[in-house]
Amino acid sequence: MVIVMAPDVTPEDIDAVVRLVESTGGEAFVSRGVTGVFDPATDREQVRVTRVVIGLVGDMEQLAELNLREMRGVAKVTLVSSKFKLVSREHHPQRSVVDVAGVPIGPTTMTLIAGPCAVETPIQTLAAARMAKAAGATLLRGGAFKPRTSPYAFQGLGERGLKILSDVRDEIGLPIVTEVVGVEDVDMIASYADMLQIGTRNMQNFPLLQAVGATRKPVMLKRGMNATIEEWLMAAEYIAQRGNLDIVLCERGIRTFETATRNTLDISAVPVVQRMSHLPVIIDPSHSGGHRDLVLPLSRAGIVVGADGLIIDVHPQPDRALCDGPQALIAEDLRELSRMVGELSAVMGREPADTEQERRLAG
Amino acid sequence: MVIVMAPDVTPEDIDAVVRLVESTGGEAFVSRGVTGVFDPATDREQVRVTRVVIGLVGDMEQLAELNLREMRGVAKVTLVSSKFKLVSREHHPQRSVVDVAGVPIGPTTMTLIAGPCAVETPIQTLAAARMAKAAGATLLRGGAFKPRTSPYAFQGLGERGLKILSDVRDEIGLPIVTEVVGVEDVDMIASYADMLQIGTRNMQNFPLLQAVGATRKPVMLKRGMNATIEEWLMAAEYIAQRGNLDIVLCERGIRTFETATRNTLDISAVPVVQRMSHLPVIIDPSHSGGHRDLVLPLSRAGIVVGADGLIIDVHPQPDRALCDGPQALIAEDLRELSRMVGELSAVMGREPADTEQERRLAG
Amino acid sequence: MVIVMAPDVTPEDIDAVVRLVESTGGEAFVSRGVTGVFDPATDREQVRVTRVVIGLVGDMEQLAELNLREMRGVAKVTLVSSKFKLVSREHHPQRSVVDVAGVPIGPTTMTLIAGPCAVETPIQTLAAARMAKAAGATLLRGGAFKPRTSPYAFQGLGERGLKILSDVRDEIGLPIVTEVVGVEDVDMIASYADMLQIGTRNMQNFPLLQAVGATRKPVMLKRGMNATIEEWLMAAEYIAQRGNLDIVLCERGIRTFETATRNTLDISAVPVVQRMSHLPVIIDPSHSGGHRDLVLPLSRAGIVVGADGLIIDVHPQPDRALCDGPQALIAEDLRELSRMVGELSAVMGREPADTEQERRLAG
Amino acid sequence: MVIVMAPDVTPEDIDAVVRLVESTGGEAFVSRGVTGVFDPATDREQVRVTRVVIGLVGDMEQLAELNLREMRGVAKVTLVSSKFKLVSREHHPQRSVVDVAGVPIGPTTMTLIAGPCAVETPIQTLAAARMAKAAGATLLRGGAFKPRTSPYAFQGLGERGLKILSDVRDEIGLPIVTEVVGVEDVDMIASYADMLQIGTRNMQNFPLLQAVGATRKPVMLKRGMNATIEEWLMAAEYIAQRGNLDIVLCERGIRTFETATRNTLDISAVPVVQRMSHLPVIIDPSHSGGHRDLVLPLSRAGIVVGADGLIIDVHPQPDRALCDGPQALIAEDLRELSRMVGELSAVMGREPADTEQERRLAG
Repeated sequence: MVIVMAPDVTPEDIDAVVRLVESTGGEAFVSRGVTGVFDPATDREQVRVTRVVIGLVGDMEQLAELNLREMRGVAKVTLVSSKFKLVSREHHPQRSVVDVAGVPIGPTTMTLIAGPCAVETPIQTLAAARMAKAAGATLLRGGAFKPRTSPYAFQGLGERGLKILSDVRDEIGLPIVTEVVGVEDVDMIASYADMLQIGTRNMQNFPLLQAVGATRKPVMLKRGMNATIEEWLMAAEYIAQRGNLDIVLCERGIRTFETATRNTLDISAVPVVQRMSHLPVIIDPSHSGGHRDLVLPLSRAGIVVGADGLIIDVHPQPDRALCDGPQALIAEDLRELSRMVGELSAVMGREPADTEQERRLAG
Repeated sequence: MVIVMAPDVTPEDIDAVVRLVESTGGEAFVSRGVTGVFDPATDREQVRVTRVVIGLVGDMEQLAELNLREMRGVAKVTLVSSKFKLVSREHHPQRSVVDVAGVPIGPTTMTLIAGPCAVETPIQTLAAARMAKAAGATLLRGGAFKPRTSPYAFQGLGERGLKILSDVRDEIGLPIVTEVVGVEDVDMIASYADMLQIGTRNMQNFPLLQAVGATRKPVMLKRGMNATIEEWLMAAEYIAQRGNLDIVLCERGIRTFETATRNTLDISAVPVVQRMSHLPVIIDPSHSGGHRDLVLPLSRAGIVVGADGLIIDVHPQPDRALCDGPQALIAEDLRELSRMVGELSAVMGREPADTEQERRLAG
Repeated sequence: MVIVMAPDVTPEDIDAVVRLVESTGGEAFVSRGVTGVFDPATDREQVRVTRVVIGLVGDMEQLAELNLREMRGVAKVTLVSSKFKLVSREHHPQRSVVDVAGVPIGPTTMTLIAGPCAVETPIQTLAAARMAKAAGATLLRGGAFKPRTSPYAFQGLGERGLKILSDVRDEIGLPIVTEVVGVEDVDMIASYADMLQIGTRNMQNFPLLQAVGATRKPVMLKRGMNATIEEWLMAAEYIAQRGNLDIVLCERGIRTFETATRNTLDISAVPVVQRMSHLPVIIDPSHSGGHRDLVLPLSRAGIVVGADGLIIDVHPQPDRALCDGPQALIAEDLRELSRMVGELSAVMGREPADTEQERRLAG
Repeated sequence: MVIVMAPDVTPEDIDAVVRLVESTGGEAFVSRGVTGVFDPATDREQVRVTRVVIGLVGDMEQLAELNLREMRGVAKVTLVSSKFKLVSREHHPQRSVVDVAGVPIGPTTMTLIAGPCAVETPIQTLAAARMAKAAGATLLRGGAFKPRTSPYAFQGLGERGLKILSDVRDEIGLPIVTEVVGVEDVDMIASYADMLQIGTRNMQNFPLLQAVGATRKPVMLKRGMNATIEEWLMAAEYIAQRGNLDIVLCERGIRTFETATRNTLDISAVPVVQRMSHLPVIIDPSHSGGHRDLVLPLSRAGIVVGADGLIIDVHPQPDRALCDGPQALIAEDLRELSRMVGELSAVMGREPADTEQERRLAG
């Protein structure tokens, strides 16, 4: 059951609904939509809420008897039948924009996220960030906590890596996206990051989904390498249900019998997801192909299939990378990437996203 | 073992090599390359051969003792180690152009093939062909022999369907591409068709591959829905080994666990194949997605990932189609397709292929 | 539409139905059931027909108007809704026995088929056949026509191989099972073989299915490595529809992401198929595992999961085999196989099948 | 790098090694092997350690310079090249026995684990446990924390469910196996459970693997539905590296294109794993097949392929189950299961595991 609140709802109205639901043994999760409504005159942390939705869990018959429809501030009560509710496009036909510290990801822009797969040293991270920015990236990716198949592989620098990322952000001005692996690290990582990434192996780590859902940070949810599109949207629903609708989906390739590529990029997932959900969706051509020379063709394909952004590995010296070097782009690839993003975004009627854009658009 | 003959080789030189190899119990298959060399001043059936390659099968030690390198007309004898030889890019770095009755498929053009999945009636076929031509298609597809999972499903009109296709070709001027299912039908179908199609279920039907390899017609080889890229190129090698190098590969989606789409279009296969083989490669967005509204996004992705063409289902009345109606484009989609092919081909530095182009290019 | 004829139906009754159906433009395929009813007093080629079923293809409304139910010899007319009809268990609840030159494959026996993957020489074939017989095999497998992924791999000895098999049969007394690859070879191969095998790559080679369906020889239909169980039964329906119900299904592993084994044996397919179809089903532990040391464990699993038989590669010198040596069993494995087949068959209430058994059972 | 300590090693020796390694910035994880050595005269919590292995993570060159080989209590220092070390059979050829509160899982026994998929009520849990015990189960499974694809599905009773399980254990005497989903719950769950289960969706939840690795409880590690066998053993290595070698692997089906079964049981994984690792491996026929009538055939197959145990869903009223009812066995199936486990275990030379056995064997 989903309750859509009226535009002029007050915190007291919301509290009243929550308390009533909880009094019957049910649970109420409040989601605050912020799509395209950040106030350009204010600091990025300040949020102008335009849409409040409350998802209910519990005994449906009992909840139906509460007559929630009549409560103050309630606009609509929906008994949704589709498997996912808050992330479904059924009740939210307009595609959402997620704001990452001023950088929009949504239907009218093309957002380039780039950076090193893993943060290794301050010098490597700064160099990669400069490459990323020069190529037109407006968000910096970088992993400090790395989930690795082998316990003997490099596991990331941990909080030390986050400090490096934070310093690099101060230096070059790109907001940062970084992965969370464990529930216990979510708050600490959220204190550094502008966007939290859930990796492919954790797509069904439900406590972790709930933990990032409880933060106020935008989340990038990578598709599980064996997950159906429906399961992926269900995972997004776990995040949304805890009150965080700032979710960007990321297609990064699925596991198939083909071994010529690291994974098989399911390019069709982009239009399929956009039909089913209002959430933005981006693609990761680096991890799906697994080879440097596939990154540009797959990036082109991603843009014109309709993706809202790209996330790309770059490294100043790929042959020395501690993680996924073979797929990292180098400087000359990036010039071509930059040129091509501009040209194809224009064909698709999108403009490259930048850090000031969201403010300008809203201003 | 592969023998590359000199540019001025004579038929007698070729015969001498073949006879010598056969005298030792081996087999010799002569491939005549016609890449980009059709004579514009002559009829389309006349072929100017520029490159002759002879593939040998037999006892390699015995063949090595024949001293073939010294024979007249022999330019090079190669003991290739790669699994495929004639279709590999290793010994043929330039990407090939396949000429289909005057329409080129290759690295500088974007060829649109369209038509009904199955030929049903003369009126339906003509209407679909007109839609295809209006959208910019320069080759007409249409199935008269349909391999269907169920013996109780519509199996195609057989030769009657080929006659309809042939009449439509006379009427609107597009060369025709049609599927062969059985070895016994190859010659009959080749007498009607301009290009023979091998479907996904027959990709490893080796006698059929050898039979189309023995014709002089260009072949479109669809990827098996469970075939690795390597197996696909091996299947092309079966065709090439019988002397027919006019092969166009067609990626049409692979079978995975995802059920939201009919198949998973393996878009990465295009650049991977182009690195491994000199053969042109096109994509089939209709059969991979299985839904009308995926055809345009996947077509766009196919063009910019670098495909040499597209093959698309169209039907004047998709809801009445006897085969694969849900994925057939209708008239308004086709206008958008046409616009988009033009725009994105230009971005990729390709020009749309037409029936006169090959002559002009060569003239 | 399926017509079940009465037990006392005459050839004239059957002809009358067929002619009437054909007069409306439809097609009628007569299947003669011979399950468990071979006459032990007569030559193996003589067949006592106990059940005649006619499958109809055409315009269902038109066929319905023919009032076939009233014709002489017709017991029942069924408008079956399930996707497969003749092979379905819905109208044939008793599980079938297929008789291969006196050797039964069915629900009360455990039939061991063994032999070399490929026939190479008379000596190798005879040695392998002796190994097979010593291990309790009552049918001899051996390939003379081999569908190979690469055109440069050993393709089998062709008819010369069939002659070797035939000589070995005369010598040691085991009926032979061998693969058909091309429609044009079916009659020739059927003149040597006791059972025709359709390989995994040809499971959807529909003309080939129809061709073996038109013979009087039992057919072993291997599952396509990417085929769903439903598609596999549909392929069997193609054979049955041409009048041949003597079909044995063979599970040989499917293609998955796992690379530790050659294919993934889908052991669950055995009970699933047995619930859906009356046809016998056996397993091939050699091709699914691809390693010698997996053959015995998978054979044990196959027997107790309920399979009606096993087909196993043996070779006197696996390290010299021209095809699939790594998975061929050697003599000491075979003693263990023999012991284990006896013990586990007893647990399952089956007795090992032998060449005289069918006669005795029916006598 | 792995250090094998001498049999007479003292806690002080171990500490000395750990401190030295840590002084260089490396990490040392102590694993205490308890395989088959529990003292029958004592309480189950008391453990007789027979084998101490220390896994090192850090700068290998630096660690090599420490000359660890010369330290007191060190028997061997190995620079292992295989991807997994502690769980590999390479350095531990004898197959391990894991003791779960007195019930052995290992190469000479057949352990039956049964119970409800989810704990719902005290009555349902007790009834299911009685069914399980009557069928010969010696361990009770039951989920209190359920990872569900949808946030709107029943998520389990949490700690209340654990109390129910604990009461049922007191009542009928079977040790309990239950799932852990979040790192933060591990200690609490370990205070109730005799064995901790890691579910398929968490196989690569590395912090969770490390957390259970830090407990003294045996762990059942289910295979990820998309995990290769190598990745599965790597996940086990994460647990082992934290000092817990009491790991039982559980094959529960992988995700493939086949939809007739819930998952595809990869029965070959059992012998493949046993060749690569010394850890016990069991199969879950309930979750792989997803249908009640597949559970018995797949259980039979599992026993004879060589599995060390089975884990099976039972429910007193499957049609009312809150989770996975369609695959739960009912009373009459269980009688057949019991009979069959006895018969086939004997064929395989194993005896059914019981709670006193481990003590008797060691006594």
